[in-house]
Formats: sequence, structure tokens, C-alpha cells
Amino acid sequence: MVNSLKVGDRATITITFSEVEIFQFAEISTDRNPLHLDKDFGRASIFGQRVVHGMLVASLFSGLIGMELPGSGSIYLGQSLSFKAPVSIDEPVTASVEVIKIREDKPIVTLRTVCINSVGTTVIEGEAVVKVTTPNQHEN
Amino acid sequence: MVNSLKVGDRATITITFSEVEIFQFAEISTDRNPLHLDKDFGRASIFGQRVVHGMLVASLFSGLIGMELPGSGSIYLGQSLSFKAPVSIDEPVTASVEVIKIREDKPIVTLRTVCINSVGTTVIEGEAVVKVTTPNQHEN
Repeated sequence: MVNSLKVGDRATITITFSEVEIFQFAEISTDRNPLHLDKDFGRASIFGQRVVHGMLVASLFSGLIGMELPGSGSIYLGQSLSFKAPVSIDEPVTASVEVIKIREDKPIVTLRTVCINSVGTTVIEGEAVVKVTTPNQHEN
Repeated sequence: MVNSLKVGDRATITITFSEVEIFQFAEISTDRNPLHLDKDFGRASIFGQRVVHGMLVASLFSGLIGMELPGSGSIYLGQSLSFKAPVSIDEPVTASVEVIKIREDKPIVTLRTVCINSVGTTVIEGEAVVKVTTPNQHEN
């Protein structure tokens, strides 16, 4: 599968997180930080409003990697995340992953992972390292 | 607030992710990778079973940081994640964050972030960088 990948390959997704997803994510992740859930707390914060959990936004990278590029069989080895700006609730964000390095000795690729908001500001940037496997190679 | 922190301060949480949370996380994050959702796909994978989304497990760090250490007013600046081993569904995992560096010039702290499984194997490790703010400092 890694043979079909090339540097520059890219996948993107645009999504809007609403209050519903924020509260659901808070429940399942246990991250009930009031910065995300409490309107008054958000208003008094450095952002002036509640913001979407950074790790929820960053999960878009995981989805793109596992479902599109490299796709099924991807094994996440690492992810660096730099949170550059907040994401507002109900604000569209676009996440992208782009192959920037393919190892020759092992089926391991590095992808640049970037998320921008609706006005083009980078909200998250980083890199992912992914091992590419073929599931049925491992069947007995 | 940063004045009350010291190197070595530590917070932990132990939690078990069930199939319910995996499917909910898949919906809200758009990460519907069959490695997490499809029993047959998981069985044929290198792990021999479905595994919990790494980003969901890593969200435990975000929760500890935003709610306990440093706590409310924490602004996530960065997170590195190295996924060392898979987390099984219904397997207890323990996440911990520990202050390893406090900047003298700015209210910014670095925390070691580690997650271990029920037999003590490290499943995720990395570092978080967090800015410590006091919400009401920003009120008009």
C-alpha cells in the first residue's frame, strides 16, 4: 500500500463542531474543562468565549489518516500538535494531511497536519507518523 | 496560579473505554476507521482486535490539564504524542500528567504526559506545553 503513496498526496475535511459535539466529547473524554462548557467561564477567558477542545479538532487528523490517507490499515505511531489559535463553536474548520516523507526501509510515512479556520488562520499544526499495514497480511 | 505549581506535581485518572464511547467518539470526530469499529477488521489487523482511538485516550491528558493540573485557566499550547502500544476496548488505562518544567519569564509549564495500561505497559507518552491564565484577569 505504501508503494502507491507519494510525497505531496493530500486529503482534507471541513467540519463544524456544535455545542452538541462539545458536550458529548466532554463526557466520553472526561475533559469537562469549563473553558469548553461554561458560557460565563468562556466569556471571562482570554478567548472571550467558549472554544472547541483542541484534541477534538486534532482528531480530524486521525480520521483523515485512518480513512483516507494512507487509509485503512494505518497505524498511528505519533502526532505532534501546536495549538496556534482557538476554534469557536459553530465555526467551520478545515483539517488537512499531506505526505511529506516516505521511508525507504520501512512502510512508515510522515504527514504534515494542519487545521485552518474559516478565515484561513492556522489553528493547529503538527506532524503525524504512520505505519502502513495491510490487514489481511496478518490473518492466520 | 503558576506560582503555586512546582516541578513534580502530578495528577492521574484511570478510566475504561467501552464500545459505547468508541462509537460516540467516531461520530463526533468523524474518525470511523474500521480498526476501531469493525470486529472483523480489528481481528485481521496487526493487533488481532479492535482498539481504542489513540486520540480519545490522549484526550485524558487534556482533561487532567484543564481540570486538575494546572486546572481551570489552562491554555493548551502544544502536545506531542507517541503511540507505543494499543489500548483494548474495556481495558482500564491510567493517564498521568507531571510538571517537569516551569518557565521563569512566562506563565508556561511543560508536563510529561504518560498513559499506561492495566499491566503497566506504556501505551502513550509525550509532553504537553500549557499556558496558565487566570480567567478573571481578562474581564473588562
